[in-house]
Amino acid sequence: MSKVNLLEKFSLFDSYWDPKIVGELNNQYIKLAKLKGEFLWHHHENEDELFMVVKGHLTIKLRDGDIELNEGEFYIIPKGTEHMPKAENEAYVLMFEPKSTVNTGSADSEKTINNLEKI
Amino acid sequence: MSKVNLLEKFSLFDSYWDPKIVGELNNQYIKLAKLKGEFLWHHHENEDELFMVVKGHLTIKLRDGDIELNEGEFYIIPKGTEHMPKAENEAYVLMFEPKSTVNTGSADSEKTINNLEKI
Repeated sequence: MSKVNLLEKFSLFDSYWDPKIVGELNNQYIKLAKLKGEFLWHHHENEDELFMVVKGHLTIKLRDGDIELNEGEFYIIPKGTEHMPKAENEAYVLMFEPKSTVNTGSADSEKTINNLEKI
Repeated sequence: MSKVNLLEKFSLFDSYWDPKIVGELNNQYIKLAKLKGEFLWHHHENEDELFMVVKGHLTIKLRDGDIELNEGEFYIIPKGTEHMPKAENEAYVLMFEPKSTVNTGSADSEKTINNLEKI
């Protein structure tokens, strides 16, 4: 593989809530997504999930409070924990998670993406 | 857990080649390290290893060429691949790898750190 420049990869797509795979290691994926607006409440039964903000601001709503993430900050959502990502303005986000993770987790929805694109 | 601010965490230590654990998920660790100078040639038998530059510039020497990483760039070293990280000037680096990964991999050395600190 070659090295990955995060901002270069982000420039390759415009869609929101549409994670792209940019790296794979130890049965985990590195994904990038542009987020804007609200997603939906869901949890991942078996996978912890990391969100790191590369640009902008992201709110991760949890049932017991909100996590506010700025550029250069990350949060790990433990498996089983209900959450809803929300970005008032466009946010660039990096995710680390097992290959098995589905974006909408427990919630089947028209927002579910089953075949992620590698870029 | 609370959210993690990368630069705040880097401000908590000054030592070089002394990775600190700042997150754990899915049997993997997120580690931060300050690098300066040359490390040593080694490989990891069973683990792929990700290096992402948070600040500065990092060279990853491989047997068939060098990878040059700037801020916002990452590279995944496949298991079994010999490598030597090198930073002419101080570099802040994030690593993502299985909990089992030892910093010096195959090479036993006075640089080996067996009990990583969580910060």
